[in-house]
Amino acid sequence: MKFEVTILGSSSATPIFNRNPSAQALNINERLYLVDCGEGTQQQMLKFDIKARRIDHIFISHLHGDHYLGLIGLLSSMQLNGRDKPLNIFCPANLKEIIDIQLKFSETTLEYEVNYKFTNAAAAEVILDNADVTVETIPLDHRMACTGFLFREKKRMRKLIKEKVEELKIPVEYFSALKKGADYTAPNGKLYKNDTLTIDSSEPKTYVYCSDTLPGDWYIDQIKNATLLYHEATFLNNMLERAIETHHTTALQAAEIAVKSNAKKLIIGHFSARYKTLNELLDEARSVFPGTELAIEGRVFEIE
Amino acid sequence: MKFEVTILGSSSATPIFNRNPSAQALNINERLYLVDCGEGTQQQMLKFDIKARRIDHIFISHLHGDHYLGLIGLLSSMQLNGRDKPLNIFCPANLKEIIDIQLKFSETTLEYEVNYKFTNAAAAEVILDNADVTVETIPLDHRMACTGFLFREKKRMRKLIKEKVEELKIPVEYFSALKKGADYTAPNGKLYKNDTLTIDSSEPKTYVYCSDTLPGDWYIDQIKNATLLYHEATFLNNMLERAIETHHTTALQAAEIAVKSNAKKLIIGHFSARYKTLNELLDEARSVFPGTELAIEGRVFEIE
Repeated sequence: MKFEVTILGSSSATPIFNRNPSAQALNINERLYLVDCGEGTQQQMLKFDIKARRIDHIFISHLHGDHYLGLIGLLSSMQLNGRDKPLNIFCPANLKEIIDIQLKFSETTLEYEVNYKFTNAAAAEVILDNADVTVETIPLDHRMACTGFLFREKKRMRKLIKEKVEELKIPVEYFSALKKGADYTAPNGKLYKNDTLTIDSSEPKTYVYCSDTLPGDWYIDQIKNATLLYHEATFLNNMLERAIETHHTTALQAAEIAVKSNAKKLIIGHFSARYKTLNELLDEARSVFPGTELAIEGRVFEIE
Repeated sequence: MKFEVTILGSSSATPIFNRNPSAQALNINERLYLVDCGEGTQQQMLKFDIKARRIDHIFISHLHGDHYLGLIGLLSSMQLNGRDKPLNIFCPANLKEIIDIQLKFSETTLEYEVNYKFTNAAAAEVILDNADVTVETIPLDHRMACTGFLFREKKRMRKLIKEKVEELKIPVEYFSALKKGADYTAPNGKLYKNDTLTIDSSEPKTYVYCSDTLPGDWYIDQIKNATLLYHEATFLNNMLERAIETHHTTALQAAEIAVKSNAKKLIIGHFSARYKTLNELLDEARSVFPGTELAIEGRVFEIE
């Protein structure tokens, strides 16, 4: 099953040349999930071939402009491009008011259904559960209500041990039950336990999106063992004071979160506009957690 | 005096790869005037070296998203970049409500002064008059209240005829009055009429911005003899019906407006996303008005 993330924006607060505000597109089993939607996200989508019509779910972490300003333009373009299937938006409640007033004054009617599910930054909550994935909010500590998101692949069915199934000549109509864990009783009455006929599927993979926040222990348990952890790293650690003041994380701290939570791999992003190049941020994080990569516009990370 | 326009966006309704929604930056005597501000305008400004701190005046033609969605991001970035001088915004009244609700929910306080002057699409009006330029609204006929803008350079002072001034040994303290048109009485009592000592400055140049509208006769007189006319040309003329339905202009019609209004030069823009290349639009307009150019992101036109 495909599970990958494309970085559409890596910049904090103000964009700089070649760095756009926060946005990421997750491809989970060929369905797209947009995570944050800073100004210019639809232009970034055009650039990196992320098709709006394949997005059915949008997640907005909080209402600082660099995380949501691109949403109204994207919704309008979906309308202009003839969308007719529902769109699900997971966001702080006030965003609906922002969207509605703009639809009103721009005299735009969305002819597709928009379902809002409002997030609550006070407690973790499963906000989506479909055939491919569950999504939980991660309460974060920013200057305003803010949640991260944890995408957990659904556990796949067990896999048949082909040789065993052929040897016993098990009829094909039993396969589905076997994959779900059932035992098998042969025509001669002999019972075969499921684990002699199938093997377990691999552990579900997880993608964790943490933006924007002070680093802390309270979300370590929830994000434990992430296959891929994205964590904001707005500053270098020599600006720790500024990071604390603005409720952000340094590259060093992001790497420490990756270590503590036993992440398999870490992406850092949400870089302050003061950093014209990113090497120092990467080096700092790698000094603590070697498996760190930079969120760079257009880069695609497989979650594996 | 510098008088030039940089195209930041040339796309209508939906952006396409390499074409951004409407925005232009006018440089008039080294002060910048932003005209429309579609999504991603601040990113385009970074790309084409248009410095936000040099902008004191922003003009928004109407409240379709492709003309204003970039404004809130630009205002926020100005704040984050420490702006402390006033900003003047000329726009439909409802835009203030859209901006205010976003400032509120993003918990952003602008510490610089923002002065709104609301436009009225019912009648032409001078909305700005400073040392360099006057700006008038142009009432247009779109699906919602919409105005164009006419930028008219201030008439420069008369120029001294150097040889004449030297011959008569006119003291330097008289120069300012002469440039303003005063006559000169020599110490011997002889009167010299101003037009024997100075020559008139060139005719003030004008830049006309017409977007979005049905083409029509009612604004021809107002925009007469434009040094440079920008006119929207959303469609080819083979889509005239669609142009009428959506209250837009075709390339052919834009060129006809240039002919009727005796423009010196024409730029067409606001191209529908259906046109992946623009040659046909240019050819169509040039068949009627040869002095046509395309609005292309990053292109700079001198108004001369």
